[in-house]
Amino acid sequence: MATATSKQVILRDYVSGFPKESDLEITATAVELKVPANSSSVLVKNLYLSCDPYMRMRMGKPNPATAALAQAYNPGKPVFGFGVSKVIDSGHPDFQKGDLLWGIVGWEEYSVITPTPNLHFKIHHTDVPLSYYTGLLGMPGMTAYAGFYEICTPKKGEYVFVSAASGAVGQLVGQFAKMMGCYVVGSAGSKEKVDLLKNKFGFDDAFNYKEEPDLAAALKRCFPEGIDIYFENVGGKMLDAVLVNMRMNGRIAVCGMISQYNLENPEGVHNLTTIIYNRIRIEGFVVFDYFDRHSKFLDFVLPYIREGKITYVEDVAEGLESGPSALIGLFHGKNVGKQLVAVAPE
Amino acid sequence: MATATSKQVILRDYVSGFPKESDLEITATAVELKVPANSSSVLVKNLYLSCDPYMRMRMGKPNPATAALAQAYNPGKPVFGFGVSKVIDSGHPDFQKGDLLWGIVGWEEYSVITPTPNLHFKIHHTDVPLSYYTGLLGMPGMTAYAGFYEICTPKKGEYVFVSAASGAVGQLVGQFAKMMGCYVVGSAGSKEKVDLLKNKFGFDDAFNYKEEPDLAAALKRCFPEGIDIYFENVGGKMLDAVLVNMRMNGRIAVCGMISQYNLENPEGVHNLTTIIYNRIRIEGFVVFDYFDRHSKFLDFVLPYIREGKITYVEDVAEGLESGPSALIGLFHGKNVGKQLVAVAPE
Repeated sequence: MATATSKQVILRDYVSGFPKESDLEITATAVELKVPANSSSVLVKNLYLSCDPYMRMRMGKPNPATAALAQAYNPGKPVFGFGVSKVIDSGHPDFQKGDLLWGIVGWEEYSVITPTPNLHFKIHHTDVPLSYYTGLLGMPGMTAYAGFYEICTPKKGEYVFVSAASGAVGQLVGQFAKMMGCYVVGSAGSKEKVDLLKNKFGFDDAFNYKEEPDLAAALKRCFPEGIDIYFENVGGKMLDAVLVNMRMNGRIAVCGMISQYNLENPEGVHNLTTIIYNRIRIEGFVVFDYFDRHSKFLDFVLPYIREGKITYVEDVAEGLESGPSALIGLFHGKNVGKQLVAVAPE
Repeated sequence: MATATSKQVILRDYVSGFPKESDLEITATAVELKVPANSSSVLVKNLYLSCDPYMRMRMGKPNPATAALAQAYNPGKPVFGFGVSKVIDSGHPDFQKGDLLWGIVGWEEYSVITPTPNLHFKIHHTDVPLSYYTGLLGMPGMTAYAGFYEICTPKKGEYVFVSAASGAVGQLVGQFAKMMGCYVVGSAGSKEKVDLLKNKFGFDDAFNYKEEPDLAAALKRCFPEGIDIYFENVGGKMLDAVLVNMRMNGRIAVCGMISQYNLENPEGVHNLTTIIYNRIRIEGFVVFDYFDRHSKFLDFVLPYIREGKITYVEDVAEGLESGPSALIGLFHGKNVGKQLVAVAPE
């Protein structure tokens, strides 16, 4: 029976505080290139792996509060996340050799998966870059879609602010908001990213939060009339600055709070009384609740991509060995656009 | 022309930090007991005045952020708020001498008002205590009604937590929740209030927050399965303790944050990341948005009062002179039940 060596990215031990590259290590294991007889599992070769902020939650000690959303990784075992993969062998009736899929796989060259509805999706449209299924066409795309259209309940002409706006989700939220006729401002952490927001993604304005001594004043400058919708990706000080700039009946869709994930003691948010007199709704959401709408989402978004009306920027790290630095870099904002790892040629 | 002396409660100067009785003073002025000819105003004799936490916002310097909700009081002028009044003379076609009304009046024995829709309501039902129109049948009652039924979107069997639960609003929210078949726990600041919650208002459980060294642990003890609905009246540390005890898809209706109103620097709330993975909605609301439903509310609540299915506890201070201590006492939790001032016999 044919075997191959499969490199893997292993979590050494549970992480507290900021994760380091040395919290992960590369090992190799032998894999058989066939699924066992009578098994309904699927052997895949991983082509692209996605680096996503929520993976930080999986690196810490098991936490009952977050287990339902993000089960902890096992020290000594490969980390896992969303990826794009090609079927090598299959005992599952829905998948054949050569099929492409996206969904949860290990950070390794080959994975054996048990296809699970809403965790693994067969790829039917290959006229767009396959890597997009780690981002625009996958989990982050669904996050932007569900978060913006369902949680933000946007209306034409509203004022929209997006933090971490050049990231996988933010760049899409901004473009969706522009398509709806909103005024959109984004924040990001470098001049390069701010330029992307203004010149590539079509944001009306953008600022580098690292160069703003007073975030509330920066927002006041960008939104003299106030903010109707805040798509929250960062939390902490930015949320406090937003709260004092929200308009009446504003909405805050809480997608993530990346500024808080690595803190042992999260920052305090002080301006919550503003939500009373401004009738603000703050709502957390998790994209997994919306995965049953993925094919509807593709019907919506693929035409825009084909017509060039939605653009997408990826930051591609080459080779599984670059996975640890790519993932850790995400928490330092090193990525420009959606961070992913190209593991093997298509 | 007949005149009378009208005592008034005057704000001496804008307040910062905790208000003190000495921030208010009693003065007297002469009033004519008739409205001017050709005026459409109404002269009323004030019977009851309501002490409400939001009045603290009116005592500070004018703040553009809160002006729409709570215009600042003018130093040297009487404070104002909700009251129950009897018409002495009227140039307004909708009000006749002898009519009763509730709505915004000055803290004084006689007020001249310009009847305004949704600020002044004629009283048609007098088989219930008139003072109830400062509470159960007035603004606090509408607050509990709109906040619980519209913002909390409650379902039978859900777990409901109410802070400041023996206050004007809290005692009603608890009773509405019980009527709906929810499990209801309240917090309050004394043994006497906790006893009221358990023995008079029918809460399933209650605790004295001042005697709990660990609020999150107290909530865990009361809600081993977690909290579906939090009716937020206090903010700060209690909100943080609630956030780590919320169940999936929980709702937090933010009615007020009395623990924060007197702080120059509001406390930080640290546990907001929990709203993401538990899909929590936090929503601020203002009762004024719901006043057009007041007659519908009366149709709903009056039968329950007449049948003794809803009970209501008031803390009545006698005489306008007791107004300052009654109002300031509210911020120290001195009141047991709805705090009001009886200004004149009915």
